[in-house]
Parts: sequence; structure tokens; C-alpha cells
Amino acid sequence: MNIHVIPTVMEARTEEFHHKTVIVIDVLRATSTLLTALVNGCTEIIPVETVHGAKSLQREGDLLGGERACKKIPGFDLGNSPLEYEPALVTGKRLILTTTNGTRAIQKAGKNSRILVGSLLNARACALKALEWGEELAILCSGTQDVFSLEDGLCSGLILDELERLAGGTAPVSSAQASFKVNDFGLGMLYAYRGVRDRLTETLLASANGKRLTKLGCREDVLYCAQRNTIGIAPEVRGGKVEALTV
Amino acid sequence: MNIHVIPTVMEARTEEFHHKTVIVIDVLRATSTLLTALVNGCTEIIPVETVHGAKSLQREGDLLGGERACKKIPGFDLGNSPLEYEPALVTGKRLILTTTNGTRAIQKAGKNSRILVGSLLNARACALKALEWGEELAILCSGTQDVFSLEDGLCSGLILDELERLAGGTAPVSSAQASFKVNDFGLGMLYAYRGVRDRLTETLLASANGKRLTKLGCREDVLYCAQRNTIGIAPEVRGGKVEALTV
Repeated sequence: MNIHVIPTVMEARTEEFHHKTVIVIDVLRATSTLLTALVNGCTEIIPVETVHGAKSLQREGDLLGGERACKKIPGFDLGNSPLEYEPALVTGKRLILTTTNGTRAIQKAGKNSRILVGSLLNARACALKALEWGEELAILCSGTQDVFSLEDGLCSGLILDELERLAGGTAPVSSAQASFKVNDFGLGMLYAYRGVRDRLTETLLASANGKRLTKLGCREDVLYCAQRNTIGIAPEVRGGKVEALTV
Repeated sequence: MNIHVIPTVMEARTEEFHHKTVIVIDVLRATSTLLTALVNGCTEIIPVETVHGAKSLQREGDLLGGERACKKIPGFDLGNSPLEYEPALVTGKRLILTTTNGTRAIQKAGKNSRILVGSLLNARACALKALEWGEELAILCSGTQDVFSLEDGLCSGLILDELERLAGGTAPVSSAQASFKVNDFGLGMLYAYRGVRDRLTETLLASANGKRLTKLGCREDVLYCAQRNTIGIAPEVRGGKVEALTV
């Protein structure tokens, strides 16, 4: 299985994703929020790139969610904290979500690929789905304003770690004889993840986004998003929408 | 101390390096070769970007060295294997060196910065010099044809590890309270290095360049370049030339 991990949206080329599985990651916080909204009862989530686009799609009963510069957008129902998306608020609702980096990454992944929404919360479910679907996998780390974000890289490392565990018996991902062919950047992220797996929360708090969110009073979001494999679904983006799929 | 690790030459902006110390890394093999030639007796090394440029600088008695596509350039005295640069061949000679990625990275680091030539072989010496010189440090991983190379990233991780050790007593580089402020990419490389420090040679052999060089019959080069801190100097590029400096 060929696996290509991409450090930022800027370095992603839509044409490279044709006929591949693409796992889009924005741990802090877009994909973590999207997953939480889904398991808490949203019927459908539409990720869009612009505030204007979000507003123009809204129908009666829909929720508008998202952020700019880590803050809730004026006139929107919800921001980008996964902790806001409580069952009582979101159950049975359609959500239109726009964030700075994560929704852009989903758009970039293109229409000719099979796109999964990934985060630390559902890394194992993503790995399972990718194994089921086949040979070519890209993992797209959203990053922040075209700069690499550590938490996304570590999440790609966790997915690789899960893939190796799930495949069992084969040569390790990181060996020269591996049945997984991982690019150098992906190998680096796998080693980084394994190096900090026992202090992942602390590591996320020390990352640029971890520090930024803590300063903005959103430390609880970082603690929540640092959890691993608490969500058992790997939802797919199809026709511009996300619907829950069981693994 | 602010430390910014840059994954490839493509992502480097010369203007960002003004008045900083820049450590340029091309572990496989340009900077490892350059360092080896220097400690084996070269009087001066001139890194140049083009084959034509190298030839036009050659004066009587000079050695021409370098590679294109990992192979020796026709008409040149030496290729890009550090093992070729034996004392008997290079002592007392001036060397003009052109390689695909490493010499390009040195050019990119620009004229308004203090440039050090780094590799695994002299990581500690680079860390010492950077600490001595001051506050702003960039570590430029050459990569390969604009793609990230694991061995360069791991070398940046080793330099960060050495910096932390040398600074002693201060909060760890990787903590939120650290006196070193390292960008997320640098933190990822530090964790990756620490994760594989006990099997660095094996890790380099499994990287894209490690596999490529092995296939080309240059496995010994990888083993040689995977050694740590065997060279105690951190040479500076000044006025387009490299001369040995003791730490």
C-alpha cells in the first residue's frame, strides 16, 4: 500500500488525489468538531470554504458553525469548539461548517477521490476504512495558514501506527522491506508520534495551536481533541456533504 | 532562542534568514562530503550551483567534485561520496563542489546570514556554534528535488537535542515553558529523532535516499553519514567559500 503524507494544504495538489483515499486531518479543531457534531446527532454536515457560502446554503432549521481566527463568526449559531456541539443542540439538525483550514483541505482533496474525515478521535476507524478500500492512500494534514501544524502530523503518525497494527504480521511500516510504502515525511511523523505517544496531551499543549488556543481560553478543547480512538466511525465526504458511516 | 526548522529548500525564503545563523543540512550526501573533505585536508571548498559554474572556477591544482542524479559528473575528479575524499587525494587542495540539493541550499541561505555547514557528523559542533552566536537560528533541510528528506529532518532533530543538552538546566525545548522557541516542524523532528536515536543507521537505510543509494551501490556512504558527532568543527560559509573553523 502506497501512503503519502502531505504536511500542509499548500503542498497538496488536487490531481495527485485522483482515485485515492484521502484522509483529511485538522485536529485543532475542524475535523474534531465535525466528528463530534456527527456522533452527537447531526444528520448531515456541509463543509464550505467561505462565510458567504455558508450563509447562502442555510435553510430553516440549519445550524451555522465555524470560526475565523479561532473565534465564532458573527451571526453564526456555533463556533469551532467541539465542546459546543452538544447533543441537545445538534441532534436532528443539518450543520453548515466553515473553518480557516480544515474545510479548505476538504475542498482541496477534490471530487475524484474518496475523502475521509480524520482526527485523533477516530484515527483507528480511518485506518480500518483505508485498509478496506485499498492500495493508494494520501493523508492530508491541514496545517494552519499554510504552515505545518504538529498535531496534524502526529495524527498522521497515529494513523500509520494503527495501519501497521491492523495489518499485523507484515514487516513494519518503517522497515525497508515494508508492505506499506510510506514517504519520508510520513515516516518522520510515525517516529514522532511513537516518541510522544505517552505524553500526547502535553505535546499538543506545547504546539503552536495548543498554546494559541490555551491563550484564548480554549485549553479544554485541546484536552478533548488529544483523545485517541474515542469515535468509532470514519465519515466520508460525498457530494460535498458528510454523513456518518459505520466502520 | 528562536529556532525555525525548514523542511526543504523550496520552502526557504532568503529574506527570512537576514541576520540569523543558518545551519544548512544535506546528510545524504553534500554536507557530509564537504565536512569530510575539509577534515581530510582540503584548504578551501567552493560550493557552486551549476556544473558550468564549477568548471569556470577551476584553476590549476583544484579538484572538481560533485554529482547529478547521485552520479559523478563527466570530467570531474570526484563524485559525491564522502569516502572518495581521502587525505591522500585532497590534502592541500582547493575543492570546487556542485551537488543537486546541498549547494543550492547554501546559495539559498543568502549573503546576509551566518551560514554553517551541518550534518549528523558535526551536529554537536553546530549546536555549540549556534549557542555562541546568539538568538535567531534557522535550520535548513535541503531535501531532495524540493521533497522532504527524512535524514535531513532527523539531523535537525539531533541538533535540537544537542542544543537542549548544551543549554542544560533550562526547560526542555519541547515544553510550553522552554527558553528555546521551536516551530512545530522542528518539534516534530526532535520527537522523531528521539524516537529512532537507537536505530539511526537502520532508519536512514529505510529512507527514500537510503534506499536509492543502496540500490546504486553506495550503502557504505549511508553507514558513514549516519555517524554522529565524529567531526568537531562547524565550518562557516563566508564569501562563497568554506574554510575550517575550530569550535
